[in-house]
This record gives sequence, C-alpha cells and structure tokens, in this order.
Amino acid sequence: MRILLINPNTTAAVTEQAAAHVRRLIPAEIVAVTGRFGAHYISSRAAAAIAAHAALDALAEHGAGCDAVYLACFGDPGLLALKEVSPVPVVGMAEGALHLACTRGRRVGIVTGGVLWRPMLEEFAASLGLSSRLSGIRAIAPTGGEIARDPDAALARLAAACRACAEEDGADVVILGGAALAGLAERIRPDVPVPVICSTEAGARAVMAAAGLRTGRVPPPATASTGLSPALTGLLAAG
Amino acid sequence: MRILLINPNTTAAVTEQAAAHVRRLIPAEIVAVTGRFGAHYISSRAAAAIAAHAALDALAEHGAGCDAVYLACFGDPGLLALKEVSPVPVVGMAEGALHLACTRGRRVGIVTGGVLWRPMLEEFAASLGLSSRLSGIRAIAPTGGEIARDPDAALARLAAACRACAEEDGADVVILGGAALAGLAERIRPDVPVPVICSTEAGARAVMAAAGLRTGRVPPPATASTGLSPALTGLLAAG
Amino acid sequence: MRILLINPNTTAAVTEQAAAHVRRLIPAEIVAVTGRFGAHYISSRAAAAIAAHAALDALAEHGAGCDAVYLACFGDPGLLALKEVSPVPVVGMAEGALHLACTRGRRVGIVTGGVLWRPMLEEFAASLGLSSRLSGIRAIAPTGGEIARDPDAALARLAAACRACAEEDGADVVILGGAALAGLAERIRPDVPVPVICSTEAGARAVMAAAGLRTGRVPPPATASTGLSPALTGLLAAG
Amino acid sequence: MRILLINPNTTAAVTEQAAAHVRRLIPAEIVAVTGRFGAHYISSRAAAAIAAHAALDALAEHGAGCDAVYLACFGDPGLLALKEVSPVPVVGMAEGALHLACTRGRRVGIVTGGVLWRPMLEEFAASLGLSSRLSGIRAIAPTGGEIARDPDAALARLAAACRACAEEDGADVVILGGAALAGLAERIRPDVPVPVICSTEAGARAVMAAAGLRTGRVPPPATASTGLSPALTGLLAAG
Amino acid sequence: MRILLINPNTTAAVTEQAAAHVRRLIPAEIVAVTGRFGAHYISSRAAAAIAAHAALDALAEHGAGCDAVYLACFGDPGLLALKEVSPVPVVGMAEGALHLACTRGRRVGIVTGGVLWRPMLEEFAASLGLSSRLSGIRAIAPTGGEIARDPDAALARLAAACRACAEEDGADVVILGGAALAGLAERIRPDVPVPVICSTEAGARAVMAAAGLRTGRVPPPATASTGLSPALTGLLAAG
Amino acid sequence: MRILLINPNTTAAVTEQAAAHVRRLIPAEIVAVTGRFGAHYISSRAAAAIAAHAALDALAEHGAGCDAVYLACFGDPGLLALKEVSPVPVVGMAEGALHLACTRGRRVGIVTGGVLWRPMLEEFAASLGLSSRLSGIRAIAPTGGEIARDPDAALARLAAACRACAEEDGADVVILGGAALAGLAERIRPDVPVPVICSTEAGARAVMAAAGLRTGRVPPPATASTGLSPALTGLLAAG
Repeated sequence: MRILLINPNTTAAVTEQAAAHVRRLIPAEIVAVTGRFGAHYISSRAAAAIAAHAALDALAEHGAGCDAVYLACFGDPGLLALKEVSPVPVVGMAEGALHLACTRGRRVGIVTGGVLWRPMLEEFAASLGLSSRLSGIRAIAPTGGEIARDPDAALARLAAACRACAEEDGADVVILGGAALAGLAERIRPDVPVPVICSTEAGARAVMAAAGLRTGRVPPPATASTGLSPALTGLLAAG
Repeated sequence: MRILLINPNTTAAVTEQAAAHVRRLIPAEIVAVTGRFGAHYISSRAAAAIAAHAALDALAEHGAGCDAVYLACFGDPGLLALKEVSPVPVVGMAEGALHLACTRGRRVGIVTGGVLWRPMLEEFAASLGLSSRLSGIRAIAPTGGEIARDPDAALARLAAACRACAEEDGADVVILGGAALAGLAERIRPDVPVPVICSTEAGARAVMAAAGLRTGRVPPPATASTGLSPALTGLLAAG
Repeated sequence: MRILLINPNTTAAVTEQAAAHVRRLIPAEIVAVTGRFGAHYISSRAAAAIAAHAALDALAEHGAGCDAVYLACFGDPGLLALKEVSPVPVVGMAEGALHLACTRGRRVGIVTGGVLWRPMLEEFAASLGLSSRLSGIRAIAPTGGEIARDPDAALARLAAACRACAEEDGADVVILGGAALAGLAERIRPDVPVPVICSTEAGARAVMAAAGLRTGRVPPPATASTGLSPALTGLLAAG
Repeated sequence: MRILLINPNTTAAVTEQAAAHVRRLIPAEIVAVTGRFGAHYISSRAAAAIAAHAALDALAEHGAGCDAVYLACFGDPGLLALKEVSPVPVVGMAEGALHLACTRGRRVGIVTGGVLWRPMLEEFAASLGLSSRLSGIRAIAPTGGEIARDPDAALARLAAACRACAEEDGADVVILGGAALAGLAERIRPDVPVPVICSTEAGARAVMAAAGLRTGRVPPPATASTGLSPALTGLLAAG
Repeated sequence: MRILLINPNTTAAVTEQAAAHVRRLIPAEIVAVTGRFGAHYISSRAAAAIAAHAALDALAEHGAGCDAVYLACFGDPGLLALKEVSPVPVVGMAEGALHLACTRGRRVGIVTGGVLWRPMLEEFAASLGLSSRLSGIRAIAPTGGEIARDPDAALARLAAACRACAEEDGADVVILGGAALAGLAERIRPDVPVPVICSTEAGARAVMAAAGLRTGRVPPPATASTGLSPALTGLLAAG
Repeated sequence: MRILLINPNTTAAVTEQAAAHVRRLIPAEIVAVTGRFGAHYISSRAAAAIAAHAALDALAEHGAGCDAVYLACFGDPGLLALKEVSPVPVVGMAEGALHLACTRGRRVGIVTGGVLWRPMLEEFAASLGLSSRLSGIRAIAPTGGEIARDPDAALARLAAACRACAEEDGADVVILGGAALAGLAERIRPDVPVPVICSTEAGARAVMAAAGLRTGRVPPPATASTGLSPALTGLLAAG
C-alpha cells in the first residue's frame, strides 16, 4: 500500500513531522509532499482557499502510482475537489478523524490551534452532516505553526481545552486536530478525563480503511483550463 | 488482533457466512458468536429490541480476550449499550459502513432486504447524525434471511434497487446492507453505475481502524440486576 | 377503560408508587406489572436495552384484555417495539409527557435523576422530532432509585434544577421526569417560577387521550424466535 | 369541565358542526363561539392573520368561566397569542391532532381542503418542531368550506389523498384535518390502509388531557391598546 | 420610487421617527402610515397578532400607487399575509435586515428591546430558515417604546448587549433591531468590536433591492369576509 | 459607486456579457475582471476550487479604489475568503440572488446549466442556512459555457426546468442562475407560471444594498505566503 500524504501548506517541516508520525503507526509506504505555493501555515479562509488549489497541484504532480491520498491538513482544504479528480480514494485528516471519533463517542470535541479555524471547522463538520455529533470546538490562540515550533509551551493550554470540552461541553471523546500537533495527544491524554484522539493518526487509519475497500469508480469530468501547471492541466483535461 | 463478531440473531448459518467473508478480507482472528435467544432473523422492531439484549449477553459470555467487537447486524441492535459496557472498542456494521461510505461519496444510498428495516435504518442514520448524507433507503421485500437462503433469486432485484438509488435518488455510492448479503456486492457491482459497498466488509474495515486507534477509556457504571445470565449479571455489576 | 402499566425495571416498589399516583388522578383501571428480569433501576444504556426486552415480555404476559398500554419508565425503553406488536395503543411516559408539555410551553425543560439519562433523553427527544422544543435536560446525580428511597433529601436539588431550567436555559415549562419521582412535582412547584409537570401524571393523561382516539390498526409482522418466554414467543409469532 | 371552542372563521354552521361532533365524543360542556369578523372560510394567509385577531376577540368576550380553550381551526391561527393571554390552557386543533398522531405513528400524513393550506401547515408543523414526523401534506382543491357544503362529493378525493399519504409518502397514520371535515374520518377509514385520525376529535382529546394537567401558570404582560373591542382591550390591559 | 412604510403599532411618533430615518438614507418617496387599532407598542404575541390585521388594514387603505411596501416593525407581524395580497413587493424590517446582515457576517447577533421579543424573533428567524446563522438574540428589558421615549438612558445597555453578542455568542455582525431604535446604531458602533447594523436602514435598503427586481407575479386568492374595513374587504375580495 | 465585478473563470466573453447586463440595470461604475488562471468555464468542484484562488488573485490586483465587490459566478467560489480579506463589502451572485429571492417567495427553485453544479449548489445553499427555503435545483445538461455560446438552443429546456420547479417541486419563485445566462430570464418569464429571477441582476442589486449599508469593519489576519502573485502576497500580508 502506497499513500500520497499531501500537506497543502508550504512548510516542509510540518509535512515531515506528520509523515514521520504516520510511518510509525501505519504499515504503508508514505509519499509525503508539500504545497508548492500558498500560506506558510493555513489559519485563515484565504489561506485555505489557496491551499485547495495547491493540493490539486500536488496530486497532479505526485499522484501517479499511489493507492490512496491522505489530505493531511486538519480542515481538509480542497477535499471534494481532490475526490472528484483522483483515480484513487482520498480521505482528509478532519474527515477521517471525525468519522472515526464518532465510533468512539457520542459527542465529539475538537481542540486545535488558531482561532480562525473554529468557524471554518464548524462549517466543515456541517458539510459532513456531523454537526449534531460535535460538542464544540475550542481553538487556542497559537496557530498550528506556532505550536509546531514550540509544542511544550502549548501542552498545558491544549490539555485545558480538552478538559473543557469534556467538563463544560459534554464531549465524551476529543480530537486534537492539526498536522502540526501530531504526537501531542499521547502527552496530554493523562490529563484529560475522556479519550483523546490524534487527528494525524486517526486520519491515517481512516485512509487505510478506505483504501482497502473495494467499490468501483465513476470517471470525473474533463475540464479545459488556462494558466495552471502542466500536470494539473493534464489531470483536469483527462476527465 | 482478535475480533469478537457478534451476530445477534439466532441463526448460526448467517454468523458463519459473515465470519467467513470477513476472514477472507481482514488480517485478524475472528471469534464468531450467535445470539442465544431472539428472532431467527431480525426484521422488525421487536426482534431488534430483543437482539440488543442478546448482543449484550453474547459480549458478556465471549468478550474476554478480544481486542475489538464487531456487531455484525446491519441496523446495529444494542450498539450504544455494547459500547457502554465493553472494555474494548465496538463498531456496528451499519455504523461502520455508513461512516466509511461517507468518505467515498457525498450522498449514500442503502439497499437491504425486509421492508420494515427502512424506517428503522432511517432512524439509525439520524441517530448517527448522518441523515443529510443519505440519498434514501430502498428495502426489497425478501428479508435478509430469505435472501441468504436463495441469493441468486434476489440478485436482480438488489441490483435494480441499487440502480434506482443512483438514478432516481441521486446516490453516488450505495451500501448493500446486511450480514446475510455478505459477498453479493461484487456480483451486482457490474450492473450499477456508482460504487457499491459490501456492508460486511466495510464494517469490518471500520472495526480494524477503530481497534488500532489509541485513545484511553472511561469506565462504565455498575448496575445491579435480576434474572439475567451469570456472565451478563457480572458484566453489568463490574462497572 | 383498563390500562396496562408496565414498569420495565425489576423493582416492584416503583411500580406500586407510579400506579398509585395514576390511580389517584385518572378514572381507569390500572393493571400494574414489573419487569421479570433486568436492572433494579434503569440508569444506563445497557439497563435500558435489557428493559426493552423485559417490557415486551410483560406485554406478552399481561396484555390480554387491556385497552391501552402505559410504558411507565421515563426514557421509554422498547417504546417502538411495543407499539409494533401491541394490539392496543401504547404511550410511553417520556413520549406522552413531552408531547403534552409542548402544548403548555414553547421551550420544555426536563429534570430527572441519574446523570447517564441526559444523553439518552436527548436522543429520545430527537427521535420524537422534538429537539427544537427542548430547552435542556438537567440530571441530578442521585438516580431515580435513590430518589425514591429518600425523596426528601432530593427535593431541594430537584427544585434548584427546575429553577435553572427556567432561569438559565429559558424553559417556560419543566417536566419532572421519572416513575420514581411520581408526586414530587406538586411539592417543588411553589419554588419554581414556571409550570412543573409530573411525568407520571402527564404520561397517564396522554395514554387516556390516545386510548380513546378511534383510528384503525395495521397488523404487525409475524416473527419466528428461539429461547424467549412462551407468551412472547406467541405474541411475536402471531403477527 | 367547561371548554370554550373557538371557531375563528365567521361561519356559524362550521362552529355548530364541530361542536356537535365534539359533544358526541367528549364528556365536557362545550361553549362554542364563532369569529366576529374575518373570512367566511379561512384558506389563505391573509384570512388566517385576521382570524388570529378574531380568536383573541372571542376569547376576551366568552372566556370567563371556562376551564380550557379549544382553538377549533386546523392551522391554529393565533395559537401562541391565545396561550399568552389566556388564564386557562389553550390547545389548537392542528397542534393537538399532530401531537396525538405522533403517539400513533412514526410518520404522519395530513389531508385537508384548500391548496393554500399546504405551505401554511408545513410551517405550522415546523413551528411545533414536528417537521421530521410529517410524511407530507396533501391538500385537495375544494376548501373546507366547500367540503362542508357537499361532503359526499369530496369523500372519494379525500380517501384517495389519504391512500397516497400511505402508499407514496410512507405515512403510517393520516390526519384528516379541518373543522369542516369533522366526522368524515370514519367514513373514509375503510378505504385507507393505515389509521385515519379525525382532527376535530383528536384536538378535543388533547384539550381534555391538557385541561386536566396540573402545572401552575405565569402571568401575561399588560398591554395598552387602541381601537379594539372593550373586552379585548381589558384582557390585554389586565396582564 | 414610492414606498409605503407601514408601522403596525398605533404610535404615530414611532412611524415618523422611522420614516425620517429612511428619508435621510434612501432616494425614494416614503408614504408612512400608522396602525388604526392595536397595541401602542408591540411587545407581546397578542399585540403582534393584532398588528398583522392592522398592517393588512393599512395596506388596503394606503397601498394604491406605491411601488413597494416596507413593513417597518422588527418582527414583521403579518409579513406573509401582506406578501400574499399585495400587488407590489413587500419586505419586512427583520426579514430585510437579517438577509442583508447574512451577507456581512457568518454569525448574526440581534439586540432589541422588550424581553418577550426574544422567542418571537427566534421563531421568526427559524421561519426564514436562518436559525443556523443566528449567534443569539439579546433583548434588554426596556421595550422599544420605552427606548424611543428616552434613548440616552438605553444606549449603554444596548452597547453592552451588542458587545456580549460578539464576545460571548460569537457574532461577527450585530443587528440593532426596532423601528423605535432607528438611528441608534451609529451612536453605539464605536463601542462594539464588530459591525452594527441599523435594522431600519437595512430593511429599507432591502426594500429598494426587492422593489427594483423584475420578476413577474402570481395573483392572490379571492376571499369573502365579514366585519372588516371596506378597503380590506375589497382587497381580499379582489383576489 | 464603483463595483469590482470578478468573473473567476478564464473566459473574458462571459465577463463582458455579465458586466454589460449589470451596467444596463444598476447606476454604478462596473470594473469587470476575468480570472488569470483556471478553467475556461467552471462546472466541477476542481474548477471551482481553483477559481477561489483566481478570485483572490483578481481582488488583490484590481480591488483598489472600489466600493464593493461582486463575485459574479453563480456558486460563488472563494466567497468567504474574499469577504475575509476585502476592505469593502463582497457579495456573491448566488448568495445575493438567494437572499433576495427569499423575500419574493417562500420556496425558491434554482435552474442552471451543468449537472455537476447541482450538489455544489445544494451545499452552498446549506452553507448559507437556506436549505429549508430551496424547493430544489434543476441543472440542465449544457454547461453555462455551452449555453452562452448558443442561448437560443437552451431556452426551451431552461423554461421547462423552471416550470418543473413550480409544478413538481412547489417553488413559488425560480432563480435562473449563472453569469452566462444573464438576460435570459426575461425571455423565459412568459412561459413560467411563477416569478423568474435573473441571478446576475439580483446579485447586483444585493451588492448595491450591501455596499450602501454602514456598519464598520474588522481587520483580517496577516498571512505569510510563498509562490503567489505580488499583489496577492501583499494583500495577505497586509492583514
């Protein structure tokens, strides 16, 4: 099994961190790629909109020979567009983590970094149909990028937010969301009274489940375009 | 990995059929058990209500030493009660198949056998929060039990129902639901214009994903009871 | 009018308390029965799942000659299964109380005993379609069983929870829910600024309204089974 | 028990028909009043808006000494305003019939006369929170007023609409809605495969249930006004 | 462009205040009329129900020659009835302000005067389908009438409520609702960290947008009536 | 008033057609720009995802000196990202047309070209909170681009789809959606029994209403990026 892990921001260190975490847990070959253009860290709607284009660009350039695609940004920019054009299954980090968390608890809390993500993730969960399963989203002020640079400084705040999900919002499971937070769940789990899920791990396990599932596939539309990379131009034109 | 597969109806042949299908696809040890009391086939609310008790009874009797539980009845009788008392992760067949199908299509159709299942499954999907992802449920008249006894007779009707999900209801993926229908998806896939998912396979893959996920756990309540099997009395009392 | 009052837990004292309260208020003959097996008090999902079977068992054994069935447990385990197989109208305590409360206020609060009931009752209200009418559910720590054993100790906490429903959650009517709490509403009413409904009374009045209503009936399915009581085996087989 | 039955249209014959039907079924004194101004028959939004005022006017003039109020127009114009100012419980015909029907079936169909009622009733059901319980509303072209003048001419169309609710929309119970249709349910019941509820009867039974329920009451606001009837001016000013 | 501005309460001073505010902002002729009967200020369900009739009465009397109708009461009593019978476009103050606010922010807060308006406005927003866009409604105790008589006394409380919408409820835009509050938004805007919309201005701008839009029109139903004003009798009869 | 009209596809002829239509109707200066890269016509999720980036790119390059932004593609790719970074109000064509249509009818139908738009528009309407106001979306097979090249060939199909919205889906107003369909509404209006709204006109009128509304503004976040155009890099960095 060969999985294309796309980090649609433009910081290679985050890509490497997420890929390393996945490689430790999942018996698959991980091909990890970083966005070619866009925000260094995605923590706004504008950055996410550009990242959707960057993710498509990365799929077109690096998708050949992969069995599945892991869109490894919690918030899943471009998820449905990738699913539309990809010849192999695509699962997003937030998508996979949310669906898997729903099998572990009735009311799912989310903790992440970057306050602008809160409404974006509320809307994303609604787009999955899972609003009624969310107990609430708590976004601490440091963005994922800032947490990645100094995780120790953020641990106490992340744990406090997870506890608040459980004790104030009624969550019976909490997702620690963000590629930049890969691996922190196990460090805060002892301080939280309900299960804590690492989004990077959960998304990867959902990719594995989806990748194995035999289903059949519908071909995408063919689209003529201008001004895109040769690979993306070709992917869109192929249909 | 050792998975307890519980068929909560009282027909051992269905248990064996589902277990054999899972063993072909999933690299895990499958311990398969059949309900000790209740309906031969579950195709009504009363039968499902009794099956929830039977599933708890089976978990109490056979759960020791397993790493996860697969509630292998599409409709998942007793799912939340099992999750409450089980020391290991529990995933239901409909729960797992629906969540996994949501990663494959935007609008999920369900085809199953037994007309009384339709409202029951609508309510189950609503309880998962996934109503907005359903394109519709089409239940053909023969029940799962009848289909299991003569699958060839049902294939054309099942395929027609799957096509109607796609062409009339707008499904872009269809779940063929039911332990008794294990293995039929691949036979009808060529006749359906959208991907067709086998619920027995998808549920099992979701169990595998959930079983591997590290989270932590909250202990269940301790409950005093009367008139139950010794094992179930003990499981409830243990808390 | 002869009404079968089913208490699906296994504590006869609760059955008697609820039946006595109903007999004081409602001009009907009350046949009161207690669950033959299951939890002494129902305050978990597992206990409720088993109680659904016990309620069916009680209906099969004692239903003959009754004009209506009152499922007298606030949370209504097995409600739809009972409706499916019963030849006469069935109303649950929470079902009847919620529908009747909706005619008395726009936003309905619920106060009950046993913290695990909160999510279960939220899901039950959702299954009725009434989530948007709920202002919130406040469950105090003592279970119904504990409150029944020492009601005086719980009165102040129940009244405080009712006030919080009104003053913090915006309820304009509150249901005091639980067979074990029958009769307490009138004692706390003076301390609550909005109307307080006794669930045992309200459920019984809803049973009376439903019992009188002429409608016609659809026959249930016939189901073959194994290992159940002779009466339940017969009820399921009769169709 | 003394019940004020308010027909908020201005046709006394409809008032008498509904009151006579209720008197046959319910052991209570029925004080029946007709709107003092407004549409002869209510079958539009404008007519319903004026009827809300007329219902308040009728309550102010005739409410003294009554134990409960039955707003006997299917669509319940002015329902919440009446509840706000009435010192005794108020139940509307559609409100009571819908809540009671929900105890009889999972999916409730409505058949009535007058095509403009369909969206109005959809919105009314939504305001009760019961949209998810509705299978659909089928309004035949003749209005309630036209059906009342020649019920025999409408019977076949009403029965066909009820059958369509069951067979096409999935209703497992149907309400025949409208004061002007009082008594027709029993004539069409033999031709419909699911239970058929008379809204006039069901509403009255719900009034009885609500009237008996002991709860307590919150005083309404005091409102200064101009140009209204002396009785209504007084009722609003009293608070 | 000639716009009929209907204030459906019976206080001419409020009519004049709202009309003057609109005339300062909008390049249109404003014909302003006051309700002929009903509450001096609308701050209850009963007052709003009567106001719907008064608004229809005003439209019938003064609508001739106008290009659009502005129902200038935040809560829009009689809105759908007016739309039904009016030959020209009708927009309500809350309707127009809410739709326009949704283009300015994702989560819309509402601040108004009169505590009974809160549930009424929640239901109104739900009727528009916009519940999911509301962050919450905060109604301060003084009614619109009281605020109009002494606006300076209310400014600090209104600003505090707007801040709470932003800081506690997550609003990213707030509507200051009420004809009686026309012009106060600009006074409190400096003290609120998110945009503040004047409902009187926003409603008027929405009327202008709707008035210009070319669409075509469906004729209303013809309704026979009794006891109404000659103009309203004629408008209803005309169909 | 100076409005930046952004057509985010890469076909200048569509830009010109939409701009010309708006200039005929709206008293404002229209600065019309075309996407610099992306699909020639947007009729898939991948094309829409890229168009969001192109719209941001266009805003950054051409936004200076404009009073409002009109995102003139029915489906509004990048809408929330544009609102986030734009210093002046932004309204999308589908956003504005839907909100305005809701003031004209209770149930809004949409007719457009390109079958892949149907689920995308359903999701967009849901993101606005307006799903309950939609009667349905009917997308004919030719895409907007194909219709623009030969509008006469599509007129009969568009009119038939609009009639089906009214007669089968219950729409009481229909939006003819798409920049490429600007001006066709008036040609099919005579053949449709309910009002037909031109999305290009309605969106423009909504822009005008939003542009005039005084509110105040919150500054956007500052975002560091790589590989974007100098203007977009600057706009993101400015915050």
